[in-house]
Amino acid sequence: MIYLDNAATTKPDLQALERAGEFLNDNYFNPSALYKEGFALQCALKQSREKLVSYIGDAFSYDLTFTSCGTEADNTAVFGYARRGNAVTSAGEHAAVLSAFSELKNRGVAEPRYAPLKKSGGVDEDKLLAMIDDKTSFVSVMHVNNETGAVNDIAAIAKRVKAKNPRVVFHSDGVQAYGKIPFRLTDDIDLYSVSAHKIGGIKGTGALIRKKSLAFRPYIFGGGQESGRRSGTENVFGIKAFEYAAERKFSFLQADAARVAALRERLFSLLDKRIFIRLSPPDASPYILSVSAQGCRGEILLHMADDRGLLIGTGSACSSNAKARYSRVILACGYNESVADGVLRLSFSPLTTEAEAEESALILNDCARELLCRTK
Amino acid sequence: MIYLDNAATTKPDLQALERAGEFLNDNYFNPSALYKEGFALQCALKQSREKLVSYIGDAFSYDLTFTSCGTEADNTAVFGYARRGNAVTSAGEHAAVLSAFSELKNRGVAEPRYAPLKKSGGVDEDKLLAMIDDKTSFVSVMHVNNETGAVNDIAAIAKRVKAKNPRVVFHSDGVQAYGKIPFRLTDDIDLYSVSAHKIGGIKGTGALIRKKSLAFRPYIFGGGQESGRRSGTENVFGIKAFEYAAERKFSFLQADAARVAALRERLFSLLDKRIFIRLSPPDASPYILSVSAQGCRGEILLHMADDRGLLIGTGSACSSNAKARYSRVILACGYNESVADGVLRLSFSPLTTEAEAEESALILNDCARELLCRTK
Repeated sequence: MIYLDNAATTKPDLQALERAGEFLNDNYFNPSALYKEGFALQCALKQSREKLVSYIGDAFSYDLTFTSCGTEADNTAVFGYARRGNAVTSAGEHAAVLSAFSELKNRGVAEPRYAPLKKSGGVDEDKLLAMIDDKTSFVSVMHVNNETGAVNDIAAIAKRVKAKNPRVVFHSDGVQAYGKIPFRLTDDIDLYSVSAHKIGGIKGTGALIRKKSLAFRPYIFGGGQESGRRSGTENVFGIKAFEYAAERKFSFLQADAARVAALRERLFSLLDKRIFIRLSPPDASPYILSVSAQGCRGEILLHMADDRGLLIGTGSACSSNAKARYSRVILACGYNESVADGVLRLSFSPLTTEAEAEESALILNDCARELLCRTK
Repeated sequence: MIYLDNAATTKPDLQALERAGEFLNDNYFNPSALYKEGFALQCALKQSREKLVSYIGDAFSYDLTFTSCGTEADNTAVFGYARRGNAVTSAGEHAAVLSAFSELKNRGVAEPRYAPLKKSGGVDEDKLLAMIDDKTSFVSVMHVNNETGAVNDIAAIAKRVKAKNPRVVFHSDGVQAYGKIPFRLTDDIDLYSVSAHKIGGIKGTGALIRKKSLAFRPYIFGGGQESGRRSGTENVFGIKAFEYAAERKFSFLQADAARVAALRERLFSLLDKRIFIRLSPPDASPYILSVSAQGCRGEILLHMADDRGLLIGTGSACSSNAKARYSRVILACGYNESVADGVLRLSFSPLTTEAEAEESALILNDCARELLCRTK
């Protein structure tokens, strides 16, 4: 099996799981327990928070609150900080932000505004800026687009946003960026969402990184865990696995990114250009390659490839529940329905081999040619 | 080490973890992925939902939505269904319900009302009923009190509540009951929260069971997972471990409860009655024994016992973050501060042995005597 759907979720890092195993089998206590074994777990969680922040920001200025997933981190940001007036985001956001923005409207909290995308899948910065006024409380722009891999320069965007309205809280969904592309948080970025299972941790752990000068607004209330910022017994195993997986990811970040970029180019070079067009921009995250097979339906190709042992996506796995025929992100990039119909997302991991990349291209060519013959 | 803090969290069931291991190592796909491996995981999750419901209700009338913990399940119930007017709960609830009720007030959603407790820690049913009027939208009464083990007859309470106001949505936090005491959901119970890590699953998985005739109101918005009821990539490993752990728990529920009740009595029989008084009522859950060491401070005893290798609680681990000196639940039972000061919670698991129960009593007697000597 060749797995090229690593943007949906990636194989857990076995070494990270093994190291974290003690928190399942021996060190299974409740971190809120008052005895020393509980306190030791508090310290272990504190270490995880600090390490996970340290890779992209300084621990003096930022802290980290564990959540159950990237979606909850995004929801915590949106519902915590969008206030009366309006809130601005992009049309390319993950459903966790977009659906929360719709809910802002349902709840009558704030008017949601959606900035259009450029062809790359990145947000049109000028149009985003034009939507911000003195009634804007919250702006959310994703770091790496999960469908095209387009990288938004969130430091620059946040700077321009704050210059226009310094009271705005600026959030970014960093789920496809954290541990994958080089980045440091800047002073203009207030909140940043990350997820464990995209980088070798396990499903069920995410986090919201916050500039400490910003008051935290909890979304889950209860026993006051995470210093009152997120109640509920901490998923210690998932958190430690996240820390350990991130440690490995960040150690090899530059080398992995370079190698994966080369694999991606190798794969694309072998695709039949009479059929496949590239949607991802040249400066996209190396981990995501979005293509469209002209005249083919992506979902059919996906199933044909699956039968040949190649696992790929058609867009965001998280949007598959919406049962929409076309990716809203690809349409928002300005492509027509015919291009959107043929979209495939190939997403890589540092474990992907060159042979797998080559084999994948051949399988995709075969499947697309067969499908085109059939439908002619 | 003797671990008698199983109400805070219990050692994961190794067999359940082993069975669920395939969902970490091999079957790590995103359940929303469109290829057959993703779909197979959807089926695996469906099986978990149905099995977990089947132990306490029929799958025609009830469904189950996975959440990240019991706290999130409680929050989903409270914030989803408490509407204009008032919402009624008991003074003995877990912080996940009580803090959410406080937040209802902060958000100006509904007026929270708190019914007092009986000496046992159970809710005073008549006083609860008296608080319900035609403006009551939501009632939440926990099934087993997590500090005293008192069992509320939630079927009877729900029936009386609905007789008084049939439009009320009735919720119960069943975290300390599910898998521990025999119970079936009745038609008057609309929502029921459960948690995996209290019965041998792992931290990071809970669920909200819902009567299907009640419209679901999501609290986390995004990719539409869990049929739109709870977005965020499902924690497949945690969910399958929950299913497998529950399977074992429910298979041995009656026998375990009888054996644990005997252990509890054996332990209590060995405690020095000149020092220890029993707070748990005779008909409490067998898994929880709350006592007070008169003249002692519980937290000091806890640390002394910890040094002797016995791990116990002073009350709810989840309330330890509140830094309150006295358990609010024990005070709400009508005990004075002196009794509340000496509270210890001993909580059992089916793995607890008779020798451990006996040894625990001796350690507690020794520690209390030493402390009393020191402070005289």
